[in-house]
Amino acid sequence: MDRKYKAGIDIGGTGIKLGLFLLSGEPLELWSIPTDISDKGEHILRDAADSLAMKIKALGVSSADLAYAGIAVPGASRDGVHVEVCPNIGWRRKDVRREFTEALSAADSLPDGGLAVKVMNDAAAAALGEYRAGAGRGSESMMMVTLGTGVGGAFITGGRLVNGAFGCAGEIGHMCVEPDETEPCSCGRRGCLEQYASARGIVKRAEKYLAEGEKTSFLNSENLSARDISQAALAGDSLAARVLTETGDILGRALAVISCVIDPGLFVIGGGVSEAGRLFLDPVRESFAASCYPPASGTRILKAELGGNSGVFGAALSEI
Amino acid sequence: MDRKYKAGIDIGGTGIKLGLFLLSGEPLELWSIPTDISDKGEHILRDAADSLAMKIKALGVSSADLAYAGIAVPGASRDGVHVEVCPNIGWRRKDVRREFTEALSAADSLPDGGLAVKVMNDAAAAALGEYRAGAGRGSESMMMVTLGTGVGGAFITGGRLVNGAFGCAGEIGHMCVEPDETEPCSCGRRGCLEQYASARGIVKRAEKYLAEGEKTSFLNSENLSARDISQAALAGDSLAARVLTETGDILGRALAVISCVIDPGLFVIGGGVSEAGRLFLDPVRESFAASCYPPASGTRILKAELGGNSGVFGAALSEI
Repeated sequence: MDRKYKAGIDIGGTGIKLGLFLLSGEPLELWSIPTDISDKGEHILRDAADSLAMKIKALGVSSADLAYAGIAVPGASRDGVHVEVCPNIGWRRKDVRREFTEALSAADSLPDGGLAVKVMNDAAAAALGEYRAGAGRGSESMMMVTLGTGVGGAFITGGRLVNGAFGCAGEIGHMCVEPDETEPCSCGRRGCLEQYASARGIVKRAEKYLAEGEKTSFLNSENLSARDISQAALAGDSLAARVLTETGDILGRALAVISCVIDPGLFVIGGGVSEAGRLFLDPVRESFAASCYPPASGTRILKAELGGNSGVFGAALSEI
Repeated sequence: MDRKYKAGIDIGGTGIKLGLFLLSGEPLELWSIPTDISDKGEHILRDAADSLAMKIKALGVSSADLAYAGIAVPGASRDGVHVEVCPNIGWRRKDVRREFTEALSAADSLPDGGLAVKVMNDAAAAALGEYRAGAGRGSESMMMVTLGTGVGGAFITGGRLVNGAFGCAGEIGHMCVEPDETEPCSCGRRGCLEQYASARGIVKRAEKYLAEGEKTSFLNSENLSARDISQAALAGDSLAARVLTETGDILGRALAVISCVIDPGLFVIGGGVSEAGRLFLDPVRESFAASCYPPASGTRILKAELGGNSGVFGAALSEI
């Protein structure tokens, strides 16, 4: 019998997202389970395999019909098989392909000749997902920008992800954008994009204005999150809108610099703050337009289409 | 008879550089002729073809033994055949392949089935030359940085040059590196790398210090060139050395930013000021080391090895 399905698995620090797809790339079902990071994360791959096997059975098919599983992890994999370290989920060097295949084999029958499995970085998977099934569909090249706890990026050109000589390509969170900054970034440098455009950077900007006594109808400096700020801006809070505008201005200037290096033609913005939509993206676009190299002014800046599922799609579609 | 040779031609605003190579890539002879830019540059391709035919005859062979000719031009060619505009040499839209082939055919016999000709941008050719036969030999990826009248760049990864969606990839001369700059760049923006690291930018910095009455044993503000400054620095002039150090500092910070985007692992620096050698490259390296994302600190910064012939080599070796 021909194998008909492929799976995508995106392992994060709090949840594991899974998806079962037809070989054509059409998603059959997307779901998620919590991440059990106890015991140095040693239950994670078994939990994912069990959940996948259960879903496959519920759909009346078998893991023997699986052609491919792509696994996105919060770390780097140089060979598509192992990881060296994934701090957020407690992993040290691990043969992800073998552990996952054994766990799936214990939960269900595997295809003859084994299952093709590929392990990849989660930011790369998210980029690939948007490139093949989201906002980047049909583009030759694309830069994915993910604004979350950190600021990550991934550049795809000619269908291929650029990894870089030291695996640092796309580490745009650590571009220096404010040479005069006095506070250090987590990387040890000063003035990195991540200090301003990450969730933490956005909260910090809002907290500064609150401490200065700026008026706001929604924000409270207790346990403030970037999501709170996006939602307050959407609800009409002017201080929250100002925070998003200033953040967008810095990001737009950074994208203009990136554009002079790789000219991707398209930036796809994902992560929590992108959910504020035009309230955030319009300032990014205006700032880009005002500072880009003029011949690249036709560059598009779009919101990620697949939301939190970019990584699952990318993992599943990564075998092409 | 098997075809045994290939040619590289690099057309610049003042001179045309030519090279005849074995198919293995070994150069047999490199030479140059002046560029006749009269009549909208319409003599240029015939002059180049005549010079190439003459050299081939002098070596006792025939153009019928030529397998390939690569032609580097100061402009863009989207299809490897035509150019739309090359302002420095007066060209508007031109079928470079046809004009060159006809001119060579008039000067000598052509191979049966015609000659394979490819037209490319000169900065791209210089990068390819260094990548295949110069400082980048053996590297998977490389960023070429050319400091001349302007500041150009070209990024090669996996053997392939990245052109960009609008042909602007590598236009690092127009990265904003000084957001507070008040004087405009030729592109209309402010604070572009080219305003500081081009030959003109370097001269401007020296002129500013001279106008402020800084002491110097060599420099004179009349007709000062970047070459004068490099030579004065090599001869021990402290003001010239200071100008190179400050320029190198700006360039090193820009390379650190570029490294966060593409992580090339290797920067190859060409153009006049790179001839000052370590007096310029050491400040670039120190500044890069102080501001790069730490995992990329092993990135190498090397001087171009082929000097002014990078483009001729790249043009000849571009068929691989």
